[in-house]
Amino acid sequence: MLAAIAALALPMPAHASGVIDNVNGIAIGPDGKIVHFGALMIDDEGKVEKLIQGRYQEPEYKPKKPKRGQPWPERPKGPSFKLDAGGKTLIPGLIDAHGHVMGLGLSLITLDLSDTKSLAEAQAKIRAYAQENTGRKWIIGTGWNQETWGLGRFPTAAELDAAVGDIPVWLERVDGHAGWANSAAIRAAGVSATTKAPAGGRIEMAAGKPAGVFVDKAMDLIQKVVPAPAPKDRDNALEKAQRALLAVGITGIADMGTSIEDWQAFRRSADRGALRVRIMSYAYGLDNMVLIAGPEPTPWLYDDHLRMGGIKLLLDGALGSRGAWLKADYSDAPGQRGLPMIPSTQLRNIMSRAAMDNFQVAVHAIGDAANGEILDAIQEMSDTYSGDRRWRVEHAQIIDPTDLPRFARYGTIASMQPVHETSDWRMATARLGEARLKGAYAWKAMLDNHVPLAFGSDVPVESPNPFPGIAAAMSRQDARGEPAGGWMPEQKVSFEAALDGFTRQAAFAGFAEKKFGSLVPGQRADFLLIDRNIETASPTDIRGTQVLETWINGKRVYVKGQ
Amino acid sequence: MLAAIAALALPMPAHASGVIDNVNGIAIGPDGKIVHFGALMIDDEGKVEKLIQGRYQEPEYKPKKPKRGQPWPERPKGPSFKLDAGGKTLIPGLIDAHGHVMGLGLSLITLDLSDTKSLAEAQAKIRAYAQENTGRKWIIGTGWNQETWGLGRFPTAAELDAAVGDIPVWLERVDGHAGWANSAAIRAAGVSATTKAPAGGRIEMAAGKPAGVFVDKAMDLIQKVVPAPAPKDRDNALEKAQRALLAVGITGIADMGTSIEDWQAFRRSADRGALRVRIMSYAYGLDNMVLIAGPEPTPWLYDDHLRMGGIKLLLDGALGSRGAWLKADYSDAPGQRGLPMIPSTQLRNIMSRAAMDNFQVAVHAIGDAANGEILDAIQEMSDTYSGDRRWRVEHAQIIDPTDLPRFARYGTIASMQPVHETSDWRMATARLGEARLKGAYAWKAMLDNHVPLAFGSDVPVESPNPFPGIAAAMSRQDARGEPAGGWMPEQKVSFEAALDGFTRQAAFAGFAEKKFGSLVPGQRADFLLIDRNIETASPTDIRGTQVLETWINGKRVYVKGQ
Repeated sequence: MLAAIAALALPMPAHASGVIDNVNGIAIGPDGKIVHFGALMIDDEGKVEKLIQGRYQEPEYKPKKPKRGQPWPERPKGPSFKLDAGGKTLIPGLIDAHGHVMGLGLSLITLDLSDTKSLAEAQAKIRAYAQENTGRKWIIGTGWNQETWGLGRFPTAAELDAAVGDIPVWLERVDGHAGWANSAAIRAAGVSATTKAPAGGRIEMAAGKPAGVFVDKAMDLIQKVVPAPAPKDRDNALEKAQRALLAVGITGIADMGTSIEDWQAFRRSADRGALRVRIMSYAYGLDNMVLIAGPEPTPWLYDDHLRMGGIKLLLDGALGSRGAWLKADYSDAPGQRGLPMIPSTQLRNIMSRAAMDNFQVAVHAIGDAANGEILDAIQEMSDTYSGDRRWRVEHAQIIDPTDLPRFARYGTIASMQPVHETSDWRMATARLGEARLKGAYAWKAMLDNHVPLAFGSDVPVESPNPFPGIAAAMSRQDARGEPAGGWMPEQKVSFEAALDGFTRQAAFAGFAEKKFGSLVPGQRADFLLIDRNIETASPTDIRGTQVLETWINGKRVYVKGQ
Repeated sequence: MLAAIAALALPMPAHASGVIDNVNGIAIGPDGKIVHFGALMIDDEGKVEKLIQGRYQEPEYKPKKPKRGQPWPERPKGPSFKLDAGGKTLIPGLIDAHGHVMGLGLSLITLDLSDTKSLAEAQAKIRAYAQENTGRKWIIGTGWNQETWGLGRFPTAAELDAAVGDIPVWLERVDGHAGWANSAAIRAAGVSATTKAPAGGRIEMAAGKPAGVFVDKAMDLIQKVVPAPAPKDRDNALEKAQRALLAVGITGIADMGTSIEDWQAFRRSADRGALRVRIMSYAYGLDNMVLIAGPEPTPWLYDDHLRMGGIKLLLDGALGSRGAWLKADYSDAPGQRGLPMIPSTQLRNIMSRAAMDNFQVAVHAIGDAANGEILDAIQEMSDTYSGDRRWRVEHAQIIDPTDLPRFARYGTIASMQPVHETSDWRMATARLGEARLKGAYAWKAMLDNHVPLAFGSDVPVESPNPFPGIAAAMSRQDARGEPAGGWMPEQKVSFEAALDGFTRQAAFAGFAEKKFGSLVPGQRADFLLIDRNIETASPTDIRGTQVLETWINGKRVYVKGQ
């Protein structure tokens, strides 16, 4: 018995200390400037021990001769592992300041139309998917975009019936702000010619009947009868989402609109040790906030892998579906100017309710009217809820130039998605006309105003790959190099600012800057090895960056090709 | 830098090894027989290292002389701490196989009428509470029992109005199967003379109007307008519940009917390291099961402190409110025989849905019809869902003697509450008449049939104190020693069986027997030091046992008087 007690070993540390040597290290320092290093040392908790200039040196061992009868002192322990990276470029793990983790995951297990170039191609893909997935009660999908198809109008239920008519089909538009139903789905939902759209929503009509597309809150009419994914589906989706994120170098993400079902999937993954990507969670509305986090934001859980720190509110829709709330009519749809999805008083009540319990408030605002409204509301809130609140405006796409200076007040953060600009610029020009574009996707103006600027992807609306995001931020050109010279090139930002937006600022926007984001000693060792020196590469070259390895908490969690 | 690396210490173990020496140790061995020991050794994970016969001995240190130039070998490490318990009695931490953790907690922060001896006393207490708690929107309470009051009928809304008339009052009966509302509460709920009781419920009527008491599912009519407790209230309630449980030696409990809100409170407590009592959670219905646990039971979380392993279903009500479902009419209410709260097909569908994902099924069955029905259902399920299922019948109060032998089949567990018998025997006799009592609270018959018999309290219906439970199990007498010789004394069980029911069997009933319950080496070191030798004490003496210290995971979590 006694021997057994003496033999009880101390528990092994969960992490081994290590050094990643011989790297072209690039990170953002506390002042927002680029720092360089040649080796990264990791402590046994998976945190950054030190950034080393030049190469790693073994610890010295020149002990004095011991006294008679005494052994030589032990050789100092070096790190448990050493990796020679062969001069490859090492950057901090990239952080997506605005994404939808389960949205990505569910899109990876459902029909994806985002690569379709025409209505006919989409119809063929839908038909093929139905044939491959027999036995499903519904066909669910995402990613369609009538603009990409060059259709000039929404598709119809009849066009969807032509692909699949026997079971209900429900397909969300790429921006999540509209859905396309076939006749079986419309019937299943009990929607008819006399059904009224709920406030904040619109039913597209044709010949006095629902035409097939349901905009914003009218989507609920169909969605309420769509079978919810089972927990197993969600677990599968989350695992696929994590793999997709790690493969493009995303080690942390703000989940913008977490439901209780999403949260439970996050916890299930973490409980079995499978949550690798760090999630800064923002509850989908008040009910989820209260149910998930309770009386205050959660602590950081699972070694800084999960925290609910705030609430996400949707103040308006998107430009594509003309749901964005504008101060004046859409240029291409006179009489329409979108609409607020939350009435003024209710918005303030919700913000107040969240802020009083120290939750951070993140509000989706795309149109100039929505941005003006949220800036008004923040101004009013700031009297009561002072201190470091980091009010977030999500997207902040179209800003009335007179509102731009107001962004810098009250510590408001602009959470923007560079790739949206390159996807949207033609459409935005059509929707708004040239005159209203001065404050559109105005990244450089935000920086000039000293507004903290966090970058994200809005995945699954766009690809989660942050490298095209960095390229777009620097060039305002899309993957085809259009438009030449960049759209509104005065809003381009530097490589430094682009990397900052996807690392340190994205962490700051989530109250995580002490945890991760810039490889400062004491932060979590989340980093990437990539295949090119993105500091000296052109935006076009940056766009094609391949992630070779992704490390989180000092552990390798992704290797390209494995 | 190098020095810094070398100095990085191994993480300290979360627990220190130790020995509790000089105890009168009593536990239940793997064969169900009592084992004795004089010292308990705890390893550095908080698990039982060994039970020692006699006293603890320091490790020997008689090393051989080392070779020249070599130091003497280190003295073997003993445990980090030693406690001389001065011969006090040490028993395993007691486990409540059926309780309601948040129900207890919320009862501790709401008006408690369980000590009132008359309607007038209750009215006075309600009035005083309202005056002490001004500003509340509702007054919520529990614990009343018209039988204890000697009222011979339910109380009325008018009688409650006489205590508090200006704000709504809603008071649950001691068994949770009926609620008493004042007129303001009935108005707030929009209940009127024409309101129909939902299936499985009954509105007590007087002069054609709701009389004030709502039975079983009719309680929902009022409850749906009662403001839900805020998360802060729930956190406060859970902490109070834990303290109450630890003070009476409960170190583990099966939470019978966990809602998502309950679960979130458990996790909040555990996330901040404050969950001491081990909770075996059974979801309140399918929706909670799927939402909380997802595709399968959760793993054991937080060092075996929390797991959702099953589902709790309510098949009938209680005897007191005549909601228990009987095969024949109530003796004291001809024409009434209670009713099933879940129709036959639905019961089987729910059980099947849970079992197919390997959730354990625990079904509340009090009346003889309900017990017959659940035994039928288990029999049918067992064809499809074989293996170690441990179907649980909760309460199993009134069994048709012809059904008793069926209990032993399919590994069905009887989860029973000894104190219920001592609280109920007069009422049960009135409700059922002598002839139907042969299978009532039939503990010994269960043991004779080789049915695993787990004991609990049904807290907050009864006090969580397990020592009166052990005493009741052995004596079938209440705190006043009534009835003399015990009620149906042939159903008394031994001290050994009573302790087994509150330890090893309660753990087994929750699939936790490898984790805790009987101080077998490798199990969690959850134990009590108590003020008397309960093995040799009389039931009356056992009833008064005081817990001096409660230890969980090898750590002291409660000391009497501190």
